[in-house]
Amino acid sequence: MLHILLLFSFLLSTSPAAAKDFCVADFKATQGLAGYQCKVPEEVVVDDLVYSGLNVAGNFSDIPKSAINTVFVDQLPGLNGLGLSMARLDLSLGGVIPLHSHPGRSEVLLVTQGSIIAGFISSNNIAYMKTLKKGDIMVFPKGLLHFQVKSGPVPALLWSSFSSSNPGQQVLSNALFSNNLPSELIEKVTFLDELEVEKLKVLFGGSG
Amino acid sequence: MLHILLLFSFLLSTSPAAAKDFCVADFKATQGLAGYQCKVPEEVVVDDLVYSGLNVAGNFSDIPKSAINTVFVDQLPGLNGLGLSMARLDLSLGGVIPLHSHPGRSEVLLVTQGSIIAGFISSNNIAYMKTLKKGDIMVFPKGLLHFQVKSGPVPALLWSSFSSSNPGQQVLSNALFSNNLPSELIEKVTFLDELEVEKLKVLFGGSG
Amino acid sequence: MLHILLLFSFLLSTSPAAAKDFCVADFKATQGLAGYQCKVPEEVVVDDLVYSGLNVAGNFSDIPKSAINTVFVDQLPGLNGLGLSMARLDLSLGGVIPLHSHPGRSEVLLVTQGSIIAGFISSNNIAYMKTLKKGDIMVFPKGLLHFQVKSGPVPALLWSSFSSSNPGQQVLSNALFSNNLPSELIEKVTFLDELEVEKLKVLFGGSG
Amino acid sequence: MLHILLLFSFLLSTSPAAAKDFCVADFKATQGLAGYQCKVPEEVVVDDLVYSGLNVAGNFSDIPKSAINTVFVDQLPGLNGLGLSMARLDLSLGGVIPLHSHPGRSEVLLVTQGSIIAGFISSNNIAYMKTLKKGDIMVFPKGLLHFQVKSGPVPALLWSSFSSSNPGQQVLSNALFSNNLPSELIEKVTFLDELEVEKLKVLFGGSG
Amino acid sequence: MLHILLLFSFLLSTSPAAAKDFCVADFKATQGLAGYQCKVPEEVVVDDLVYSGLNVAGNFSDIPKSAINTVFVDQLPGLNGLGLSMARLDLSLGGVIPLHSHPGRSEVLLVTQGSIIAGFISSNNIAYMKTLKKGDIMVFPKGLLHFQVKSGPVPALLWSSFSSSNPGQQVLSNALFSNNLPSELIEKVTFLDELEVEKLKVLFGGSG
Amino acid sequence: MLHILLLFSFLLSTSPAAAKDFCVADFKATQGLAGYQCKVPEEVVVDDLVYSGLNVAGNFSDIPKSAINTVFVDQLPGLNGLGLSMARLDLSLGGVIPLHSHPGRSEVLLVTQGSIIAGFISSNNIAYMKTLKKGDIMVFPKGLLHFQVKSGPVPALLWSSFSSSNPGQQVLSNALFSNNLPSELIEKVTFLDELEVEKLKVLFGGSG
Repeated sequence: MLHILLLFSFLLSTSPAAAKDFCVADFKATQGLAGYQCKVPEEVVVDDLVYSGLNVAGNFSDIPKSAINTVFVDQLPGLNGLGLSMARLDLSLGGVIPLHSHPGRSEVLLVTQGSIIAGFISSNNIAYMKTLKKGDIMVFPKGLLHFQVKSGPVPALLWSSFSSSNPGQQVLSNALFSNNLPSELIEKVTFLDELEVEKLKVLFGGSG
Repeated sequence: MLHILLLFSFLLSTSPAAAKDFCVADFKATQGLAGYQCKVPEEVVVDDLVYSGLNVAGNFSDIPKSAINTVFVDQLPGLNGLGLSMARLDLSLGGVIPLHSHPGRSEVLLVTQGSIIAGFISSNNIAYMKTLKKGDIMVFPKGLLHFQVKSGPVPALLWSSFSSSNPGQQVLSNALFSNNLPSELIEKVTFLDELEVEKLKVLFGGSG
Repeated sequence: MLHILLLFSFLLSTSPAAAKDFCVADFKATQGLAGYQCKVPEEVVVDDLVYSGLNVAGNFSDIPKSAINTVFVDQLPGLNGLGLSMARLDLSLGGVIPLHSHPGRSEVLLVTQGSIIAGFISSNNIAYMKTLKKGDIMVFPKGLLHFQVKSGPVPALLWSSFSSSNPGQQVLSNALFSNNLPSELIEKVTFLDELEVEKLKVLFGGSG
Repeated sequence: MLHILLLFSFLLSTSPAAAKDFCVADFKATQGLAGYQCKVPEEVVVDDLVYSGLNVAGNFSDIPKSAINTVFVDQLPGLNGLGLSMARLDLSLGGVIPLHSHPGRSEVLLVTQGSIIAGFISSNNIAYMKTLKKGDIMVFPKGLLHFQVKSGPVPALLWSSFSSSNPGQQVLSNALFSNNLPSELIEKVTFLDELEVEKLKVLFGGSG
Repeated sequence: MLHILLLFSFLLSTSPAAAKDFCVADFKATQGLAGYQCKVPEEVVVDDLVYSGLNVAGNFSDIPKSAINTVFVDQLPGLNGLGLSMARLDLSLGGVIPLHSHPGRSEVLLVTQGSIIAGFISSNNIAYMKTLKKGDIMVFPKGLLHFQVKSGPVPALLWSSFSSSNPGQQVLSNALFSNNLPSELIEKVTFLDELEVEKLKVLFGGSG
Repeated sequence: MLHILLLFSFLLSTSPAAAKDFCVADFKATQGLAGYQCKVPEEVVVDDLVYSGLNVAGNFSDIPKSAINTVFVDQLPGLNGLGLSMARLDLSLGGVIPLHSHPGRSEVLLVTQGSIIAGFISSNNIAYMKTLKKGDIMVFPKGLLHFQVKSGPVPALLWSSFSSSNPGQQVLSNALFSNNLPSELIEKVTFLDELEVEKLKVLFGGSG
């Protein structure tokens, strides 16, 4: 009977499981529309499926006094294809996560320490905004501009979950002022003044 | 034999086809995640599947001297669920389609008259920009900020195709300055000056 | 010019945005394959998009000394259609989240306090298992059996993110022993002894 | 301990499961893009999930001497949303399943008795065709024209599985000759002779 | 402050954006189920995202006096994965786009010059047909047989948008008469006469 | 005219069709999230699309006296991307298909000979169970635990269709007892006795 059940087990499990159950990113292969190709199942180890390091904040910059520590597919190859990823956000006093969007991805934000003002703007220009405190979660529907701003004295600790293993982020200020878009063009499509555009280009390293 | 083939035809075609082949929007029913519920197949007529009116421009406003005539699912119920819709854009001299994005939707733009400068910004802040002339088409990947600006003297006629029957559009200026977002908050998350924010709030009808 | 830009804003924003940008669950309407129908956009308020209450643990049961506090679409209607939801898990000394799966959904688990042994079993019967400590995250690919067991003396605090606004969970013990499946049948399909089956049926409230 | 585990079971299972696990078609509600709305979970019975009747052939018509017995969502409400359905095909001597396609759906065909010639035509006009005997299966990729013709003396018994709970079928002869498409138009778009068109219109009940 | 914001910009933008934002087709790599693999982001240039050449008609053939100029992913690699593509159709007097379908893809057709009779046939054999004039658009749901025929004296200019970056097209006449399908088989599955089949095989280059 | 129509045919069919119409698995290339990469269209032959061999049962094991003969993408490369596959199940007297699930995939089961008791358990712990006889079909929604047990004296012949070209299967007994999961851990997460766990580990070849 032992022999037979082992056989039974064998029959059902000989074909590799990775491509069926999960698809750990093979960073050496090409990327496709939906993510990376799959690592050969036999080479998958548990450390492909676990990431350590969210116990510390990301790199702080003085302004906007925030730090972001992301765990996307490039950090955790086991996320490939799961439609999930995470980030840790730390906001100290005066901290700001500037206006940005994740093209085509949604986000759920959890506050585990401190409080913030968070909000997004819908495509009919309504601002949905609320002060979030410890234990609150808020949704940011896909592709809409949103922001988080520190409120109160206690440093804030936030956890973002994304509906993609590799969500892009488009930060408005950087999109406009960190590249070589001609100033005149920026003014035309944003209605901003020339002086303002020039000032922010200096601040964000843009040229042109 | 006639009798039999009619029978054959009957057997294969008695069940309603609409829910299988297409799903014309029933505007009286609730909307779901993917669009409207389906009109009863027997009530579908050819005019649910055709829209007339793109021979004329949309409503012009002096600034930015552009007009948009959209054919989304609310105008053409047969688009429901097809993952497609269209818009006609007319740009007269000095015309501008201000910086905007379609959350989660892609766009292909065709120029059939005149020329424009069109561009989008990727999430790593690269501006992809080109002068488009008659017969050119350009892609705008989902959710990224993009713009179109008239170039040259001839009025431009453009046709947008979207990968959704109901693409939203988030116009940056309106998202920031047409609602009640507090000015101080806008300044923090955009790095704009107070004066600039106040000026644009007046222009776009914002309060707070 | 003010008049004109307001008009421009008006033209772009008159059609309701909710069904395009997001789809807050209308609990009074029927459910479809992909979730709830959408609340009328004009009735959406910010509290449909925010949930408060994850600052406290769920209800503890002595055994397995764990508490689960879920925020699925039924608790937070704004999650509808976003492909995301969350849960807070608290494990005190000896705490266990018994073997279970989420049919068709993936999970990412974050540890913010204490440590646990977590693992899942692939469909070719390999167990991927690791001790997770503060700041670690682990993936649980869709539909595979997995578990979490408290390790170490400090109570553990865990946060699950799911790739669905309404992930089901199938707990093995309850699936087998909390209903009226005939004992003889359970024995045949699980190879468990009659005595074991009867004992667990008493424990989990099963009949038959 | 009994009390506690029952509680545990209770906590995990109180919310209705149907909309998470499956979505039995509610024929009284409207249809959406992806199928029917879901029956209230408490009203689902096992007979919503089982269909009896494929032990017999469908209705035979003399020509093309074939019978089709379909089990789509309208016959088996539990198929709703599963992306699967089936049909039984019986071909007696001279039996033919005429040229048809399933718009947007794929098919796998299994022969359990007799033999047939089956084939499909790719969009670059290559015909993939083979004689299938007992125990063979063949794929028919989505939306391509295909056919089955009886070969050999033994009646054939075939089983089709479709990648949809409600696959449409477009039978070429009926699409052209069973409605009121003007004959002149048919001739133009098919290059058929007027006489041929008129003859087939009589056969298939078309007018115009 | 400059230093810091540049740093901020840097942190958010160092990882390549292409695989997140868009996936320009790498024609040298293999094709997958959903399209081509992605070109390395650093090598993407604006000309991968723009196509020039729709200002002229495609190649005319005397019969059916029509010309098709397609811009699919093979012509415009930036379309890869966007779920969109386009074609220009020119119909001179007597022009015909013969009966065809796009397996699994939908189409929206815009008329910008002249007029045509366009139509499709549903899977329950209803013909939806209308004369379209300048400014009209009509939908052709996925996988259904459809056609366009020139009406009136003015040459027609049409623009098709497809819900795929690489829509196949199955032209009925070519599918039946341009390959080596045995004539007897064609007759059986289409009910056409032998003479008609032989005549059309000569016309369309079929053998067998 | 011949020349011209051949040209017409040529224009519409020169680009390779495989990547558009179907994607036969290239076993030599890497696997992605959605399956294998596509074989070069010119190398596709009809035998890539047909599989012979379901006329015989799979390998029998004495216990549970059942045999499974699967046709997944690894056996039939043409299934790649179609979202369909099949299996033949033979159950002799006393045959059992033990409790298992297909992570993220649904199944439809057809009985063509004999009778069985089949059932699945929903995530709110309801068992849906029925005796199936010849001509019955039953659905097993994605990811839920289910089983089939022979009833009556006649050997049973069953046909499973799956909503994937490569469905995994997680057999409960093998998942728990065929690997190196520590016994103590198994006991904790399943509430089984130590003796039972040890006995089944011997039976199924587990260690630890």
